[in-house]
Amino acid sequence: MKKFAIVLSGCGVFDGAEIHEATLSMYAIAKNGATYEMFAPDIDQHHVINHITGEEMQEKRNVLIESARIARGSIRPLTDFSASDFDGLLFPGGFGAAKNLSDWAFKGSESTVLPEVARAIREMVDTGKPLGALCISPVLIAKTLEGAELTIGSDAGTAAAIEQAGATHVATTHGEVVTDTRYNLFTTPCYMLDASIEQIGEGAENIVKAMLDHMK
Amino acid sequence: MKKFAIVLSGCGVFDGAEIHEATLSMYAIAKNGATYEMFAPDIDQHHVINHITGEEMQEKRNVLIESARIARGSIRPLTDFSASDFDGLLFPGGFGAAKNLSDWAFKGSESTVLPEVARAIREMVDTGKPLGALCISPVLIAKTLEGAELTIGSDAGTAAAIEQAGATHVATTHGEVVTDTRYNLFTTPCYMLDASIEQIGEGAENIVKAMLDHMK
Repeated sequence: MKKFAIVLSGCGVFDGAEIHEATLSMYAIAKNGATYEMFAPDIDQHHVINHITGEEMQEKRNVLIESARIARGSIRPLTDFSASDFDGLLFPGGFGAAKNLSDWAFKGSESTVLPEVARAIREMVDTGKPLGALCISPVLIAKTLEGAELTIGSDAGTAAAIEQAGATHVATTHGEVVTDTRYNLFTTPCYMLDASIEQIGEGAENIVKAMLDHMK
Repeated sequence: MKKFAIVLSGCGVFDGAEIHEATLSMYAIAKNGATYEMFAPDIDQHHVINHITGEEMQEKRNVLIESARIARGSIRPLTDFSASDFDGLLFPGGFGAAKNLSDWAFKGSESTVLPEVARAIREMVDTGKPLGALCISPVLIAKTLEGAELTIGSDAGTAAAIEQAGATHVATTHGEVVTDTRYNLFTTPCYMLDASIEQIGEGAENIVKAMLDHMK
């Protein structure tokens, strides 16, 4: 049975992992006969956002502990990750990818990726195993793998910043998956487009199937 | 287009709404050509649980604000709910149903349901519209609708407490839906059984389809 590692960045679109993208990725993996383990960095969130008002709350939350809500407690620190244990590595989206796994939300093309995230990405590439990223998460790849070809949908500002970071951006619409054969990299836009939850299910299903095909 | 109201109880299985059940219910509704609005009570959570250790954290969180993480910000206080605006009402599970929407987790058959939750349930029954409840949420119905027939799967202790509360419990396995034609009530066990995320998707799909069939 093929096994994915899924990396979360908290719990909630505005300060953590996008919940629908994470859940529907887990669902797509299980539905297609594969299995998964969950990981997240054991670090403080950049901040905590009230998801109704969009305002910052005066709280501190930990990325690993909050991610465990999506994982129903079954999650490990990302420093435990080893590419040798997995067939694929998947990053759901959410602002957490750009606020906790990197500082892309604040520095764009000049941002830095969390070292343990960059290590996990590079380990997969070094072992020739597929990487997947949804929504805004492809920016983590753009900053880690030189000249990667990827998509975040069609947002012009983000696409320009991705190109400035040295990657190639390919415009896509709902459910489309961009494949970079050099890095065995798969990306799909999900909520970086104005999408319905049904379209998120389609995107998650398509990227998981593409990664599973590649593993054959 | 048929419209569901979904009532959340926070964000995370151990102190709020079960994230997979909530997300996969939203997904099933959209996939089957219907739409939904999200609601939650604007009250403090009973407590905050670290989902890795299971221990209580010294924090205060609000049910409506945390539920908004699953709803991507698009959620209203449950006091705004009116049965006249909807064709069906659905409660995903998670301990939040038994800790925030009621005190079932602490008092079992002697528990009390939050008045705004009981009002929403009764309004649906009074207007002849279908109600659905997943996982542990059927206990809210057991305490609100006299003699309701429902399922929480096969947990003997919970089933006995449900019978003590005056309802009838029907044992079920993964994906099965129990229908109470007197109350137009639909229930399915989901994570009250030792279930995979794929089985949660199946349960959510089955209950949503059964409710949509009833709406015809």
